[in-house]
Amino acid sequence: MRNIKLDISYDGTKYCGWQIQPRDITVQGVIEDALTKIHKKKIDIIGSGRTDSGVHADQQIANFLTDIDSIPPQNFAQALNSLLPLDIRINSSVLVPLEFHSRFDAIRRTYKYYIKQGSVGHPKDRDYSWLIRRPLDIRKLNNLARVLIGEHDFTTFAAAGDQAPTKTRRIYSATFYPEGDFIVFKICGNAFLQRMVRSLTGTLVDFCWKERSPKELEDILLAKDRSLVGATAPARGLFLNKVEYK
Amino acid sequence: MRNIKLDISYDGTKYCGWQIQPRDITVQGVIEDALTKIHKKKIDIIGSGRTDSGVHADQQIANFLTDIDSIPPQNFAQALNSLLPLDIRINSSVLVPLEFHSRFDAIRRTYKYYIKQGSVGHPKDRDYSWLIRRPLDIRKLNNLARVLIGEHDFTTFAAAGDQAPTKTRRIYSATFYPEGDFIVFKICGNAFLQRMVRSLTGTLVDFCWKERSPKELEDILLAKDRSLVGATAPARGLFLNKVEYK
Repeated sequence: MRNIKLDISYDGTKYCGWQIQPRDITVQGVIEDALTKIHKKKIDIIGSGRTDSGVHADQQIANFLTDIDSIPPQNFAQALNSLLPLDIRINSSVLVPLEFHSRFDAIRRTYKYYIKQGSVGHPKDRDYSWLIRRPLDIRKLNNLARVLIGEHDFTTFAAAGDQAPTKTRRIYSATFYPEGDFIVFKICGNAFLQRMVRSLTGTLVDFCWKERSPKELEDILLAKDRSLVGATAPARGLFLNKVEYK
Repeated sequence: MRNIKLDISYDGTKYCGWQIQPRDITVQGVIEDALTKIHKKKIDIIGSGRTDSGVHADQQIANFLTDIDSIPPQNFAQALNSLLPLDIRINSSVLVPLEFHSRFDAIRRTYKYYIKQGSVGHPKDRDYSWLIRRPLDIRKLNNLARVLIGEHDFTTFAAAGDQAPTKTRRIYSATFYPEGDFIVFKICGNAFLQRMVRSLTGTLVDFCWKERSPKELEDILLAKDRSLVGATAPARGLFLNKVEYK
């Protein structure tokens, strides 16, 4: 038995998120179907974490166990790409130790959120960014984002249905910067609660517009009260950008 | 009667090009349908030029005559955007003199062609770039592209069915440069023949791979023989980037 690690990119527009569902089409489900075709038996994959419906990935990591010896590990990428739709691509497949686990072994996740400021966006960016009319101030956004650095209970920014036993997460970096036509919010942490990045993005933008202070952001974080946050930013602007391992 | 100029962006993926067709769905056709709804009678628009099936536009220019006085010229953009699909956006609508003609008055057109070098591309770029495996040398490409500058008969690079009475066009600039993850070929000229930019892109890439010289490119340009060119680059990498007027 061999353990194969996949480096995956996807356009999440047409999928009901990463995680396999009984009825809906998901990224995990489509990749498992392709692996099942190759193996002629049901194959399960373990992802580094879920992404919501409509959220994309520059890099998602997953692994699966195979008993096929005739395919060299690095060739699974090409074999899968020939079976997968064009909105899911396998960038690489590599052999990893049997004990490697995509979710438990991940030590850092990075997300990027793309914001386009203006009244009309380029049609080609419509599924990959959040178009907002009101101007943003990157310096103010960064003053707010600094509040998030460190270990905090993020209950305030969790989705209503979040099942995580603890809501404490460690944020290593959180910055806004211009990238091409976009303002990007890049955030790196050990892990994230469901909808947390979109909730943070929506709230930071709202705080910037309302000229609310970093101290007020600290207060709502400490309050652990979901009713205090701004609107959740739309899924289409969010990309799981990188998953890191020891 | 007033003459309104539209600044348009589109994702050409789902359209059979710009130019209206009796049976196929085209960008011009869809915009005319929206204007016809607003005017409650058939409205024709004049574009700066055609784009092929699958080709996109950062900026396409078109104009139309209206007898509606109740809509200020700049408000046609918003009125149209509320009727148009999200893959066509009107960036602005402005009043122009009655004699303004989008095609005849255009003095310069700029196209950008996006190339991604690698074996696997990002899924979100699949409809907006040409993925090529073999490496490219930007310096060599630019040495070749310089041959195109100036006034030439471009018969060699015209589509088989091109109806233009003269194949002479003036090229003002033609350069390859890195932009994000892409290599971009940007070319500016007074006008272009059908498929000319895609034929040039395909031929320049082919010359670069085969280490053919700028002198050889000059020779095939002078030969006015379509059989001498490389494969036409795919439509999805091409964007009409800018149309300029006096």
